[in-house]
Amino acid sequence: MNFKIRAAKMEDCKDISRMIMELAVYEKMPDQVKISHEELQRDGFCQNPFFECLVAEVPEEHKSKQGFTVVGYALYFYTYSTWKGPTVYLEDLYVMPEFRGTTCGTMLSARTVLFAQVAKKKQCVRLQLSVLDWNTPSRDFYAAKGAQDLTVTEGWHFIRFDGQNLDNLANEAPKD
Amino acid sequence: MNFKIRAAKMEDCKDISRMIMELAVYEKMPDQVKISHEELQRDGFCQNPFFECLVAEVPEEHKSKQGFTVVGYALYFYTYSTWKGPTVYLEDLYVMPEFRGTTCGTMLSARTVLFAQVAKKKQCVRLQLSVLDWNTPSRDFYAAKGAQDLTVTEGWHFIRFDGQNLDNLANEAPKD
Repeated sequence: MNFKIRAAKMEDCKDISRMIMELAVYEKMPDQVKISHEELQRDGFCQNPFFECLVAEVPEEHKSKQGFTVVGYALYFYTYSTWKGPTVYLEDLYVMPEFRGTTCGTMLSARTVLFAQVAKKKQCVRLQLSVLDWNTPSRDFYAAKGAQDLTVTEGWHFIRFDGQNLDNLANEAPKD
Repeated sequence: MNFKIRAAKMEDCKDISRMIMELAVYEKMPDQVKISHEELQRDGFCQNPFFECLVAEVPEEHKSKQGFTVVGYALYFYTYSTWKGPTVYLEDLYVMPEFRGTTCGTMLSARTVLFAQVAKKKQCVRLQLSVLDWNTPSRDFYAAKGAQDLTVTEGWHFIRFDGQNLDNLANEAPKD
């Protein structure tokens, strides 16, 4: 089956939004999704966008059961390591389940690979992402490609402030 | 003791570079630092900078034993959550040890707080960072301020491709 990977356009945000929810369901945290397609449009297609996005598109004749032709997405942005320099961070990589078992079942692989290309093009020295500990298919896939699990090898933990604790912190600040 | 927190200028990159190394020594991975102050200048002070940085400066009369007046830095950038939206990511937060025990020993606190302000100003809904599992002073500090350790609570792991495995991945890609 043919599929095309192309830069997302503003009109794709509804599809991306739908797939963000599908991925969150897979990750067992659908109630955490608070972002709308309007917000994706605002944040990704402004003058200094917060992210870049690629989508995978199949021809009309291979559309999904519900009639979708945009069947996968990869959303990423650039971060920075003070030890190594520019880094591409892959926030989400998703392909709709019904398109995973086909000849483009290698899409996950194809698109991770694509990211490595994006990284190299932008002279990034790293490609980073995060994965849930119970998501062994993805962890195995990345490990097979030579990725390091830094939480295991070096002991890095993710820390987050949000909601009330972020507000509290901001309100402690000197007001100058 | 007075100290000023201000946006870093290009001329601060030598100081920042020095403190990046001091922090890496503390984190027991000094051999991982491959970035020079010239690269910091290029990456942080170009048209689309990869990061923003604040520095803490003390008056000349309170300079460090080696004569430095820039005694701390915080380097951050903006990332994006497809569930929640714009996020500030605090890559490094460092204060030179000799300035931690003074009245500005609250600098770590003051600057984490400052970040919360940066986050709110930019309408970011989250402040994120990472910390090593053995770094209990920092982990305790963040926990006391209400942060969540997502590696513990949700099982998120950091995955990284770099060096040869990133090259290998890029070379697998379709060439179109």
